[in-house]
Amino acid sequence: MLFANIDLLDENLDHRSGQWVGVRDGRIAYLGAEPPAGEEAAAYGEVYDGRGRLLIPAFFNAHSHAPMTLLRGYAENLPLQAWLNDAVFPFEAKITPEDCYWAALLACAEMARYGCVAFSDMYYHMDQVARAALDAGLKLNLSDSLLAFKGEGLADLPVDGENRRLLRDLQSAGDGRIVVDCNIHAEYTSNPRAVADLAAFAREEGLRVQVHVSETRLEHEECKERHGGLTPVRYFDSLGLFDVPVTAAHCVWVDDGDIDILAERGVFVAVNPASNMKLGSGFAPVPKMLERGVEVCLGTDGMASNNNHDLMQDLYLLALLYKGSTGDPAAVEPKQALRAATRAGALSQGREDCGLVAVGAKADLCVLDVTGPSWAPMTNPLVNVVYAGHGADVRLTMCDGRTVYHDGAWPTLDVERAKAEVDARTKRIVGEL
Amino acid sequence: MLFANIDLLDENLDHRSGQWVGVRDGRIAYLGAEPPAGEEAAAYGEVYDGRGRLLIPAFFNAHSHAPMTLLRGYAENLPLQAWLNDAVFPFEAKITPEDCYWAALLACAEMARYGCVAFSDMYYHMDQVARAALDAGLKLNLSDSLLAFKGEGLADLPVDGENRRLLRDLQSAGDGRIVVDCNIHAEYTSNPRAVADLAAFAREEGLRVQVHVSETRLEHEECKERHGGLTPVRYFDSLGLFDVPVTAAHCVWVDDGDIDILAERGVFVAVNPASNMKLGSGFAPVPKMLERGVEVCLGTDGMASNNNHDLMQDLYLLALLYKGSTGDPAAVEPKQALRAATRAGALSQGREDCGLVAVGAKADLCVLDVTGPSWAPMTNPLVNVVYAGHGADVRLTMCDGRTVYHDGAWPTLDVERAKAEVDARTKRIVGEL
Repeated sequence: MLFANIDLLDENLDHRSGQWVGVRDGRIAYLGAEPPAGEEAAAYGEVYDGRGRLLIPAFFNAHSHAPMTLLRGYAENLPLQAWLNDAVFPFEAKITPEDCYWAALLACAEMARYGCVAFSDMYYHMDQVARAALDAGLKLNLSDSLLAFKGEGLADLPVDGENRRLLRDLQSAGDGRIVVDCNIHAEYTSNPRAVADLAAFAREEGLRVQVHVSETRLEHEECKERHGGLTPVRYFDSLGLFDVPVTAAHCVWVDDGDIDILAERGVFVAVNPASNMKLGSGFAPVPKMLERGVEVCLGTDGMASNNNHDLMQDLYLLALLYKGSTGDPAAVEPKQALRAATRAGALSQGREDCGLVAVGAKADLCVLDVTGPSWAPMTNPLVNVVYAGHGADVRLTMCDGRTVYHDGAWPTLDVERAKAEVDARTKRIVGEL
Repeated sequence: MLFANIDLLDENLDHRSGQWVGVRDGRIAYLGAEPPAGEEAAAYGEVYDGRGRLLIPAFFNAHSHAPMTLLRGYAENLPLQAWLNDAVFPFEAKITPEDCYWAALLACAEMARYGCVAFSDMYYHMDQVARAALDAGLKLNLSDSLLAFKGEGLADLPVDGENRRLLRDLQSAGDGRIVVDCNIHAEYTSNPRAVADLAAFAREEGLRVQVHVSETRLEHEECKERHGGLTPVRYFDSLGLFDVPVTAAHCVWVDDGDIDILAERGVFVAVNPASNMKLGSGFAPVPKMLERGVEVCLGTDGMASNNNHDLMQDLYLLALLYKGSTGDPAAVEPKQALRAATRAGALSQGREDCGLVAVGAKADLCVLDVTGPSWAPMTNPLVNVVYAGHGADVRLTMCDGRTVYHDGAWPTLDVERAKAEVDARTKRIVGEL
C-alpha cells in the first residue's frame, strides 16, 4: 500500500504534513515528502488517499487478559477481594479452552478496531489466545500464568510443561507475530523457589517474563511482611528475575527505591490506569517513573476492570490523570503518553523494529480520520490525538503490512460470529453459577 | 418518529428490552412493550428500526464556554497562571463576535455528534452563542460573564445592560430552547456589592445563576483571607446568591461545611473532571457530595482544558476516577454518573420535563449503536454505556423531537463550513499574537 499525501507523526512523534509512505513486504519501505518514482510507486500496489487522515504508529497493548472479555460488565462496584473471590474466580472456573478462543478473538477485533496491533497477554489456555491472534492477524506475547502456592519448584508445576509445549508449538509462529514469554502471576501467588526456577528457565531459553507487581497496597505491604521488608520489586530482584527482560504490570504502590531498581534493571512497567482506578487500586507513580528513566508502557488489563480494549482511551487517561493527582499540569506530557502506548509497548515485547513510523520498521500503522468536529482547529495535531480524538476515529489498522481493520470491516475475522459466541458463552457460564 | 422494538434505559435508568417509543410534537407521547395501535402508530411518521440500538436520555452539558473551541490544543502543559495570563487571555482579547458564533456552532456540532442536546454556557457575545444554538437546534442556558474588579455595583457594569438586552431579545427563543441565566464569573473576579446586586436582580427576574466556585486551591484559600474566613460557598451564601437556583461549576476545593450548604440550599454542582485534571486543579469531592444529597451534574468546560465536547468521555471519567482517588471501587456508581450527565443536568437548567425517557418528557434522545465489539457480552447494558461504550457509538441525537445528528450527518448545520471557519479564525488569531 502507498499512503499518498498524508500527515503523520514520525519516529519522534513530530508532525509532518503531506508525506508519502510506501509499505512492502510488511515493512515501511519508503517515507518522504515526494511521491516515490513511478516504477517504485507501482510496486506498492493500492494507493490510500491521505487527505483528512493522520498516520500514526499503531498501539501496543502491554498488559491484558484477553479471555476475560467474557467478564465485561459482570462484576461491578465490588471491593477487590469480593470482586476476585465471589465474582471473578467462580466465573473463571467455568471457562473452557474454546471460550478462551472466542473471547480472545473478540478482544482482537476490539483492539484492531481501535488501532492496536499487539498485546502482551497472561492467562490460561494460551494456545487458544494464540490461535485467536493468528486468525486476527495481530501480534501476541503470550504467557501462561505461573501459580505456586505451596513451595513448589517449577518442575512440580503444570506451567513448566505448558511453557515447553508453547515454545515448541508456537514460538515465532505467524512470521514472528507470536512470541512466547514466561510468566509469574505475582509475588502473593507464587513462592521464592518457583520464582528463582522460572527466572533461570527464562535466562537459559532467552525469554522475557510478564509479572504483576504491587498492584494493590495490601499486596505490597504483605510482601514486605512475608519477606523481611522486601517490596515485590526488591523481592523479585533478589531472586534474579530482572536478569531477563521483564514487563512488570501495574506497579501502583512501588516506592522510590523500587523505581530506581526498575530504572537500573531496565524493567518495563506496564501501567493500567483504567483498571487501577476501576478496582480502587490507585494511581501508579508514572511522573516519577518517567523522570527517573523507567520505560513506561500502557495496558488495558482485562475487561472485568476496564471495560474495553480501546487503548486510545487509556492513553487519554495516562495523559490526563496525573495532572489531577499531582496538581502539576505539565505532568506526563502528550508525547510521553503516546510513546508509552506505541514504541515503549513494542520494546516491552522485544519488538525492536516495531512501534514507530520510520523506514525499515514493521508496517504497524493506524490511520485516524481527522475530519470529525473534535479535530478542529488543528493547532497541535499530537495534542488533538491525545486529548481530543477518539479510538473510534481509527479508519485503518495495519499489522506487519496487513490490514486488520478498515472502515467498519475486519478482513481477517468474523466479528458477528465472535460477538454471538461471546454472548452465548457468557450466558452459559452465568447460568451455571 | 416511532422507535420500534428498541432497548432503552427508562426514567430510572433501568434497562427495558424491545420497547416502542413514539415522539410527537417534540415530546415522548408513547412508551410501551407493545407497538401503538395502527392509527396512532401512523401519526408518528418515520419508523426507526431499534435492532442493535439502545435508546438513552440525551446528555446535558452543565458547564461550558463554547467559544473557547477556538483554543483547542493551543496552550498545553502550562501551570494555571501562565496558562491564563500568557496564553488564554491574550488569545481571548482577539476573539470577535463572529469568531464566537463559528466556534459555538462547531461546539454544537460536536455536542450533537456525541449525544448532547443542551449546554449551560458562560462567556461573552452570548447572543452569538445563542445564534449558534438556535441554528444547530440545541438548547442553551446562556450567561454573560460578570466581571467586577473595582467595587462596582451591577448598574455600573456593562453586563447589566447586556443581561437586560439578552432577556428582551432571547429569553425563551426557539420554543424555550434558549434560557437566559445570570452570571457571576467567580468570587475572585467580582466584589460583594456586584454579587449582592446580581443576586437581587436574579431574584426579581426569576432567573438562574451560573458561577465558578472553588476551582483551584489558590482561589479557595485567597477567598478565605479576603472575606474573614468565608469560603467561596459561604461568601456567596452570605450575599443571598443561593436564594435563587444556582449552578456552581467545579467545587473542587469545597469543604464538608460547604457541601452541607450546597445540599441544603439545593445548589447544582457542575463537575468538570477532564478540565480539573488537565489544569492540575484536582478532583472535586463528588462521592461526599452524592452521599450528602447534592445534585451533581456534569460539564465539559471549555476546549482549552478538555479538549472535546464528548460528554460521554466525561461521564466515563466521573464513573472511574473516584474509585482510584478514594480506593473505594463502589465510589460513584454507574447509575449516579449517568444521572449526572442527563437528568441532573436538565434540572440544573430548570428544564423539569427534560433529561429522561418517559411519557410526557421532551424528546431529548440519544440512540447508541450497540453492535460494536466493545458492547459484547451485553451482561449489563448500563455498565456497558458508562465504561465500555464510546461517544462515537451515538447514531442519532434528538432535541425536542428534532434530529440534530444522524449517522454522520447534521441536518441542522454545515459542519464542514464550521470547521473551516474555526480553523481559519484560529490561524488569524494565532498570527496576530
